[in-house]
Amino acid sequence: MTDSVAPIRATYWVETAHNLEHAVQIMAGEQSSGTFVKVPGETPELQAQHGAVVERMTYLTTVRSPSLPCHQQAKGSYADDEIHRAEVVIAYPFVNVGTSLATLMTTVSGNLFELAQFSGLSLKDVEIPSVFADVYPGPQFGIAGTRRLAGVSERPLIGTIIKPSVGLSPDATAALVKTLCEAGLDFIKDDELQTNSPHSPLAARVEAVMRVINAHAQRTGKRVMYAFNITGDLDEMRRGHDIVLSHGGTCVMVNMLAVGLVGLLELRRHSQLPIHGHRAGWGLYYRSPAIGISYIAFQKIMRLAGADHLHVNGLRNKFCESDESVIAAARACLTPLFGGYEAMPVFSSGQSAEQASDTYAALNSADLMYLAGGGIMAHPGGPAAGVRSLQQAWDAALQGIPLSAYAADHIELQQAIERFR
Amino acid sequence: MTDSVAPIRATYWVETAHNLEHAVQIMAGEQSSGTFVKVPGETPELQAQHGAVVERMTYLTTVRSPSLPCHQQAKGSYADDEIHRAEVVIAYPFVNVGTSLATLMTTVSGNLFELAQFSGLSLKDVEIPSVFADVYPGPQFGIAGTRRLAGVSERPLIGTIIKPSVGLSPDATAALVKTLCEAGLDFIKDDELQTNSPHSPLAARVEAVMRVINAHAQRTGKRVMYAFNITGDLDEMRRGHDIVLSHGGTCVMVNMLAVGLVGLLELRRHSQLPIHGHRAGWGLYYRSPAIGISYIAFQKIMRLAGADHLHVNGLRNKFCESDESVIAAARACLTPLFGGYEAMPVFSSGQSAEQASDTYAALNSADLMYLAGGGIMAHPGGPAAGVRSLQQAWDAALQGIPLSAYAADHIELQQAIERFR
Repeated sequence: MTDSVAPIRATYWVETAHNLEHAVQIMAGEQSSGTFVKVPGETPELQAQHGAVVERMTYLTTVRSPSLPCHQQAKGSYADDEIHRAEVVIAYPFVNVGTSLATLMTTVSGNLFELAQFSGLSLKDVEIPSVFADVYPGPQFGIAGTRRLAGVSERPLIGTIIKPSVGLSPDATAALVKTLCEAGLDFIKDDELQTNSPHSPLAARVEAVMRVINAHAQRTGKRVMYAFNITGDLDEMRRGHDIVLSHGGTCVMVNMLAVGLVGLLELRRHSQLPIHGHRAGWGLYYRSPAIGISYIAFQKIMRLAGADHLHVNGLRNKFCESDESVIAAARACLTPLFGGYEAMPVFSSGQSAEQASDTYAALNSADLMYLAGGGIMAHPGGPAAGVRSLQQAWDAALQGIPLSAYAADHIELQQAIERFR
Repeated sequence: MTDSVAPIRATYWVETAHNLEHAVQIMAGEQSSGTFVKVPGETPELQAQHGAVVERMTYLTTVRSPSLPCHQQAKGSYADDEIHRAEVVIAYPFVNVGTSLATLMTTVSGNLFELAQFSGLSLKDVEIPSVFADVYPGPQFGIAGTRRLAGVSERPLIGTIIKPSVGLSPDATAALVKTLCEAGLDFIKDDELQTNSPHSPLAARVEAVMRVINAHAQRTGKRVMYAFNITGDLDEMRRGHDIVLSHGGTCVMVNMLAVGLVGLLELRRHSQLPIHGHRAGWGLYYRSPAIGISYIAFQKIMRLAGADHLHVNGLRNKFCESDESVIAAARACLTPLFGGYEAMPVFSSGQSAEQASDTYAALNSADLMYLAGGGIMAHPGGPAAGVRSLQQAWDAALQGIPLSAYAADHIELQQAIERFR
């Protein structure tokens, strides 16, 4: 039966001073039935059934010096000054892996990052057989469920992050949340640094914040979605989730890279709320052009594991990711996997009214969260005017009206443009 | 009370085209109470209590071009052609973090990898307050417990890895294990790629392999330690552990990076066996000199989370890690944390009799696992001779006798030197 399951296909960017065909065969061997030396048990039959296959190799370019050093020079020699780059697709037999995301990750992104033959290697994409859908239910709420809970249809959810990141007491946090609710936000989140700390224990923060959110909901009918950062050990996350749920909260947040795959999977299994996936630490995966994992590949794993919202930076962000990469990642989150599993991309970092139109033009979708900090709090008219400026910017974008034209009779947007452009 | 707890101190290597002092202050701010812009709530009092402090900055050198690109050039400009490198120690107040390893990881290695001010940033070490010992019991067996279960005192545990990595049926694996047991090995492990797959389900593999190991133990009194790779979802790992335990197995293995921190922590909580920590994928963390996490820092987290054995590559390995880095990592695993928590370093990758003396000389300890594949299987006298050659090489090392002198009246060692040097 398992023979009929499609292989796991991974696409890589590679750089090598060795013969390209040979180096790529070593890569396929290392991650399947082969090893450094031929061993007696590796029969032709075993190889045929279990060996990974190089399905495609596209030569890209030749450069003169290696991107990354190899400190075992004797073996991984870069003596050659002709260093080739290529894009490679490797197919790993399903029978080697089974339906385990952890094994899949080990197979497509394990030891190969260390192979002495390569002075650069990055995982660009991964194609996962649909049989994984039988095991991993994926996002429990996704885009539709999030919109329903937040009471926002069609336009993006406008949100912000509690700042200062850490240091506010539960009561001080709640006081700020009151201001933010009154400003008209749809969504508020804890900073990734603010979990269950001695100065702001989660239980006390949830209690204080939800008192404000519940009162605001009673008064206005609008239940602002607050993503409480429950990152921690598993029991702590489960308890945190239960506290949020019992106080009427509608979202939990987790630092995905810190808790890891099993942490996210177990939270998904336990959760009755949408999971807001923060990717603090992601810089490690993309800052070097020569080694890393693309978010195009990684977000698929996180969606299968159950993340409902996935951070993607934003256009003209304050970090180092290119706009092109941001949009590709957001598009990937919205691209159905096995006919579903869509997660809501979260645009954040240096966002204001200024990037709304460009974001919509590039993404061609409003199924996103749009988080601004300074873009709201530093608006000349105050936070409520800041939120209105973002709503106006998105109204303009969705109606296809140029920002400046729309700003002519929308004062908050006009002020935002003057302040943030 | 929490005010009296020591801060979490992290040491970084950084590279920036900006003013060094200013850039490092931004880094400390981003990972504590600050953000890109000054916000109203960041009072001097809050800053004093929650702001991270740059405790030391040591200028290293100035270079002409940035190691890593930043794709948001307008903001993270590298216009300057004077690019400074420094080593920096930042202290994060304990009150921000609490005793959560996941929060600690987010704090010391989160968004800062993306900061546009830096064209290079790597985490070199982390100093963890001893209050973490109250929450995380660490390695359950460690070095002493592993030696006791394996019945090996004083000298290293000599081991090997099942090859082909994947593709052997449970029965074929057991047949190979029989040969390896008879060859006199102390330790055998599954390959990191071989988990609970359709072609070798863990339950069937454990049953077949343990039948061999139990019979060998009955016959000889020696119970070979076999690290079954139980990597998978949490339930699958727990079930796998229970199967291994119920069949008389004495070790479980997990791919730490694939399951993540929560996976390892929960396994530790459940386990009655030593946990063999494989680090497949680690290349991503060290291949680029400009971005990464040092194993010196990472192994502390893994030890606190409960790993008993930790892979460190080996001298003159087949990958790209330098010998200096390998030894530093192994030394770190053996260095007590809070007066204990030692994990057994696992030397692996291209090892044979040839590296034993140098390993002992560099490490000044025999508390390690020494795994060889080809160094055993490709020995001219067969696997048993291969194992004897490794034992002889370590006898020589421990007695301070030069390898070649000892080889004069130890034929297997002599053959190994001729074959592998």
